[in-house]
Amino acid sequence: MNQNDLTLTREKHAQLDALLPSLPADAWLVLCREGSDLSTLLFAGEPMVGLSAFLFTRSGRKVALVADYDRMGIEAPGVFDEVVAYGREGLPQHLREAVRQIAPTTFALNQHVDDYLLDGLTVGLLKKLQQILGDDTIGARAVSSAPVLEPLRARKTPEELRRITRAVQLTQQLHEEAGRFMRSGMSERDVAEFIKGRQRELGVTHSFSDGAAVMTGRAGLGHRSAGDAPLTPGDTVVIDMGVYVEGYTSDVMHTYYVLGEGEDAPPAEVQARFDAAMAAVRRSVEAMRPGVRGFEVDAIARATLEERGVEPYSHALGHQIGRTVHDGGTTLAPLSERYGQRGAGALVVGEVYTVEPVVHGLTDVSGHPIGPEQDVVVTEEGARYLSTPQSELTLVR
Amino acid sequence: MNQNDLTLTREKHAQLDALLPSLPADAWLVLCREGSDLSTLLFAGEPMVGLSAFLFTRSGRKVALVADYDRMGIEAPGVFDEVVAYGREGLPQHLREAVRQIAPTTFALNQHVDDYLLDGLTVGLLKKLQQILGDDTIGARAVSSAPVLEPLRARKTPEELRRITRAVQLTQQLHEEAGRFMRSGMSERDVAEFIKGRQRELGVTHSFSDGAAVMTGRAGLGHRSAGDAPLTPGDTVVIDMGVYVEGYTSDVMHTYYVLGEGEDAPPAEVQARFDAAMAAVRRSVEAMRPGVRGFEVDAIARATLEERGVEPYSHALGHQIGRTVHDGGTTLAPLSERYGQRGAGALVVGEVYTVEPVVHGLTDVSGHPIGPEQDVVVTEEGARYLSTPQSELTLVR
Repeated sequence: MNQNDLTLTREKHAQLDALLPSLPADAWLVLCREGSDLSTLLFAGEPMVGLSAFLFTRSGRKVALVADYDRMGIEAPGVFDEVVAYGREGLPQHLREAVRQIAPTTFALNQHVDDYLLDGLTVGLLKKLQQILGDDTIGARAVSSAPVLEPLRARKTPEELRRITRAVQLTQQLHEEAGRFMRSGMSERDVAEFIKGRQRELGVTHSFSDGAAVMTGRAGLGHRSAGDAPLTPGDTVVIDMGVYVEGYTSDVMHTYYVLGEGEDAPPAEVQARFDAAMAAVRRSVEAMRPGVRGFEVDAIARATLEERGVEPYSHALGHQIGRTVHDGGTTLAPLSERYGQRGAGALVVGEVYTVEPVVHGLTDVSGHPIGPEQDVVVTEEGARYLSTPQSELTLVR
Repeated sequence: MNQNDLTLTREKHAQLDALLPSLPADAWLVLCREGSDLSTLLFAGEPMVGLSAFLFTRSGRKVALVADYDRMGIEAPGVFDEVVAYGREGLPQHLREAVRQIAPTTFALNQHVDDYLLDGLTVGLLKKLQQILGDDTIGARAVSSAPVLEPLRARKTPEELRRITRAVQLTQQLHEEAGRFMRSGMSERDVAEFIKGRQRELGVTHSFSDGAAVMTGRAGLGHRSAGDAPLTPGDTVVIDMGVYVEGYTSDVMHTYYVLGEGEDAPPAEVQARFDAAMAAVRRSVEAMRPGVRGFEVDAIARATLEERGVEPYSHALGHQIGRTVHDGGTTLAPLSERYGQRGAGALVVGEVYTVEPVVHGLTDVSGHPIGPEQDVVVTEEGARYLSTPQSELTLVR
């Protein structure tokens, strides 16, 4: 672990210490292996390889039980009250002993129907836990660890914000470079390969898609890789991209317009779509402040598009980013069958959101989708942009 | 998807078609989101972002139900009988309809106590599945999908072997380059940074540790990152490294010796440890052929070390590699509390294993650990090396 990693792990443990009194059970138990539960990155700093157990009590005690080869990373930051490293004998006897000492009557486990980042416990590991502790009612009696894990993940510390901000800056730099590189007739893949090469030179890796999702309007938007489709005069091109900086990601879209013969500017209709999308960004970000609910922000962006005669996106307006590009927790989503209660949460200081009122592209393959995605952090004073909103379509010749 | 990805997905579906008749239930159901179940990479090629369901029947029918933005990647290879893309209405009604048509009485689910790669279903998603289908007995009645998923994952196709082989070659090249770069007094991190820079230039990413796990003997082995410890005369240095090539990884260790003042060769004691480790590799690989069991191979390596007065490793002799560095399935492990039944399986043609009879480093911080890890593929004729075993310690001045 380098110094920044130590700082980060200690910051997250300070948050954890403040959250543990609100644990809805006597003990929070995390059982994982081979990086199977992403929550461990928050308090352990590195993925655990061997079968590992973490116990946190409401009274603030923190115990780690890990394989011998995972011990060093766990001990380095000095944040656990006890670290047990097991060898050939395996984890079970140590876990039984740790649970015997704590003697909890109720467990909180990483399980959640709607949020994948609060749902790191697998069905097989729950069975294994029940076998080890000789109690097959643990799963049925357990509560979700969400009241502690959700804020622990969502509220970014200064070191986390430093990493995300750097990732956003590099992403915007790559969008600008791509704009200078692009020429009518190139394929999506040509552009993605250029971006990939530049990511390599900058020492960052993409966090979704291979290099970047370069999507010509006519070939349609979606979670997809760049393909053979050419950049076609008269079409928009959306590049959706995130890069990892020290384990934290950005997620920013940029929209380009490929000029047709004799054109110097986009047609009025395309410009109007772009203006509608950017207005939806602006108005929804203005509304973001602590206490406002996710679905309320989403509704503002939708209304802005509808007012301008543009069909709203079918997905959510935005999601949190951090260790992963979809960082769980409160989502800027409608209260709907598709998103469940994910949009019901209120915004909290330190949360980082994307705001992406995408214009069409899923149902209307008109050649003119707009991808206006920005990243913002919630502060006491409202949302602050980490990225710089695009003021006009970038023109490609 | 590029042409190689299409080839790979079609190869895996050909394997799947051959395996489905041995499904231990009417239907195999995979429910996942945000890349939460690594098994999907085998039959979908790309991680699914939205809540997705896959249904495979014993009679060979294959149905995918995915979010609209995940549709394109799923349809491209043309391997599913049916692809349903949902929009704002969400997955539930489509999943109920698909299950109604297939009308299974028993489900196989991705759940497994011992193998994390067969255990991709989370506790929250099982609850969600039961809610969607209105049947809270599904979990209790389901069987494990292991009889199909385990061989599907383990048996590498020609395209998978091509990728792994390339990853192994690049890893060995990097080990050689590191040997020419290293000098007594450099820190572990200096070496790791050099390797990281070269990985960047070669366009590959590391598959564990940051760049490479560069471990001086005195600072001890383990799953850890490179630190501040200097390369010290008289010590060995082990570099443990894997790189990803098109989604597939290598995992190879190399051992270096830092010459002391006036030395031209390692001391006899260090040489003897190295010879013991390489003999353990050689003898265990010779024993690897289809039908031999994992624990039998492990026992040969242990016996070889013990014969030479060297304390055997506390972990397993080897694991499979592929999409992940610990690729699940049969493990070259003792039948023990720590490894459960993972060493009980028999080797099968197409499986790729590491063979790593590491000498000490966990309990004995003598400064002289040896990391002799090689990668081999099981063929009809026995195991074939994908890497080239180190013939002597690489000397560092």
